Parts: sequence; C-alpha cells; structure tokens
Amino acid sequence: MARPSKNILSPSIIAEAALTMVERDHDFTIPGIAKELGVNPSSLYHHVRGGRDEIINLMREALYGRIDLGAATAEGTPWQGRLRAWIRSYRANMAKLPAAMPLLVGSPVDDLPTLRIYEVAFAILDEIGIPAEDQVDVVSMLDAVVLGSALDRGAPVPMWQPGDHAVPHLQRAVPFGDDDDRSARGLELAITGAVAAIESLIAEAA
Amino acid sequence: MARPSKNILSPSIIAEAALTMVERDHDFTIPGIAKELGVNPSSLYHHVRGGRDEIINLMREALYGRIDLGAATAEGTPWQGRLRAWIRSYRANMAKLPAAMPLLVGSPVDDLPTLRIYEVAFAILDEIGIPAEDQVDVVSMLDAVVLGSALDRGAPVPMWQPGDHAVPHLQRAVPFGDDDDRSARGLELAITGAVAAIESLIAEAA
Repeated sequence: MARPSKNILSPSIIAEAALTMVERDHDFTIPGIAKELGVNPSSLYHHVRGGRDEIINLMREALYGRIDLGAATAEGTPWQGRLRAWIRSYRANMAKLPAAMPLLVGSPVDDLPTLRIYEVAFAILDEIGIPAEDQVDVVSMLDAVVLGSALDRGAPVPMWQPGDHAVPHLQRAVPFGDDDDRSARGLELAITGAVAAIESLIAEAA
Repeated sequence: MARPSKNILSPSIIAEAALTMVERDHDFTIPGIAKELGVNPSSLYHHVRGGRDEIINLMREALYGRIDLGAATAEGTPWQGRLRAWIRSYRANMAKLPAAMPLLVGSPVDDLPTLRIYEVAFAILDEIGIPAEDQVDVVSMLDAVVLGSALDRGAPVPMWQPGDHAVPHLQRAVPFGDDDDRSARGLELAITGAVAAIESLIAEAA
C-alpha cells in the first residue's frame, strides 16, 4: 500500500484545511488540521513555522484573494458605483464563511492579498478628496458594514419569530420583509448611508 | 466529602457556562458544558430539553438582556439621539463576546429579551413615519452596523501592519488613525450614515 507523499503539504493546502475546520467547528487546532490532512503535526509545523498566527494569515490570504475587484476598479465608473461594488464583492466573499470572521478580525492585517483589498478603498478616498486623517475612520465604517452584513447573511429566514410575545411594532413590521432578500436590502441601505456619510466629509473638506 | 448539590444547575448557569466556553473555544458542546460545570451531560438535558438550540437561545437571552436601553428610550431625546444610543449600547454589549456572534446570528430570534431590543428600534421607526414595508430593511442595516462594528472592536491595534508592501494609499493613511479609537470613530461615522439613510426614507415617504 502506497504511503501518502510527503509533498502533499503546502501552505495553501493547510489554509484550505483550516477553513474547512473553522466552517465546521468555528475554530481550528493544529493537531486537528494534521488529523484532517492525515499527517503528523510536526510536518505541519515544517510548512507553517509561525504556527497558529501564520495559519490565520494563510486563511485570510486565501479568503481575501478570492474577492473580485473588477467592478470596484473599473475605469469610467463613478466612485459611488465603484465603492458599492467593493462593498458588495467583499461582503459576498466573507458571507461564505461567517464563522471565520472573529478569528480573521482578531489578527493584524499584514498579508498582501488583504492589504490590496483595503488599498482599493483608500485609493478611492484619495481620489475624491477625503483628507488622509479621515480615511481610516471611513474604511472602519465600511469594514463594519461589510462584516456585519456578511454575518447577517447567515441569519435564518424568517429571522424574527415572535410567536405571541408582546412586541407590537415588530409584529406589525416583520410580515413585510423578513424574507430571503432581507439581508441584501439592509446592505443596500447601509451602502446608501455610507455614501452619504462620505459625501458629508467631502463637503466639510471642501 | 460533600457531593455537589443537584440544585446548582439552572438555565442561566448553563448559559453562562456556554458563553465562557464560546469565548475560549469559539463554540460549545453539551459534553463540554457538562465538564465545565462538573455534572453529567444527562443532568444538563434535564434542564435544557431543547438541547443545543435552546442553549444558543439562553446565551442570547443572557447577552441581550444586559443591553441598557435607558438612553435609547429617554423621553424628550430626539429620535436621532435615541437611535444613536440604541446602536452604541447594543454594539458595546456584543463587542464583549465577538466569538458568539456567528452562533447567535445563525439562530432565529424568538426570545423576549432579544425581541425587546428590536422592538425599541421598530417603535422609533414607527414614530418617525418610516413605512412598515421599509422597517425590516432599516433594522437589517442597523444590525449590520452593530454586529460589524462589534466584531471590528476586537481587531488588534494597530490593525494594518503593511511593512514594505506596495500599498501607497494605505501607507499614507494609516499613520493618521489606526489607534485605540479607530473602531469607535468608524462606528460614529456609520451611525451618521445610517441616520442619513433613514432621513432619505422619511423624505421619500412624505
């Protein structure tokens, strides 16, 4: 019987195994990944000498590397349309793995695929005249909208099941919109709000 | 040697043990909670017959029950101030346990403490004339902002550590604001945006 090749391990294979494990268990361990891949934990350490922190970074590189920024960087599209596309693409990608978000957010952003996603947002803010001292605040607002809406995308449909509880305002509202498109409509409204907040910063800076 | 009393178990003790376990491991199991509490898993089931789903609901009841809505319901405060207080209180509470968010969001809202938090938001929207058919969208926008900013609160400081990577716009911006207050300033800007989005719905409905 052939033994598994020693060459099956690579950082990207390890990242994918970690993502699979996080999706199932909401966290990962190095022995758990080793078991998933049928290898010895010490072979894992050979490929990811930075241990847990490095694996979190590899997971983020893999996830953020899949974000399609075509529409967010399309020449000729007004900035509002590019920003909307940036938010939608980033959110659609993160919504695939909500359980990974607390892990990824808890670790510093120092890998190029993730830095590049943010670079596109900072470039738009430079272009439209947002002062450098406001840009981090704006991107933090955008991150909140993206991550929150990606989490919200994982809510059940219907989300509110009030039964007979005495919550009359909620009881009246939920039949109108607690459906499959609820989270997407909330995102669009949040984007409208984010664009308005940015426009007010532009007006202040002018 | 005294044996542990059979009365030590209650739904709220079980919820707190589950929250502790989620904070540490990003998830919980019923055998894990039983071990944490030094009891037999079958004794747990006696108190939470609904199993995992019921424990998730108990966790949410405990977390949402701690949200202070005083400022969000204060008479005489304009709606923008009450909504701002609602978002801030809800977000401050969720930021204490970011790892629980994917679990809580993935389960329907049917417990009174959580329904009451949303009821306060729906009541404000009724009061200011947001049509019933838009209210779920607005609350989904608010939820995205709250949950995303609560997650973002758990990011390290500094969050972006670009090193020598070629991301010039990001490199220029981050020295101005990647500090302890970054996430809070992003939240305030997101609230400004949410209020603007709501005001545009009021104008449309008028």
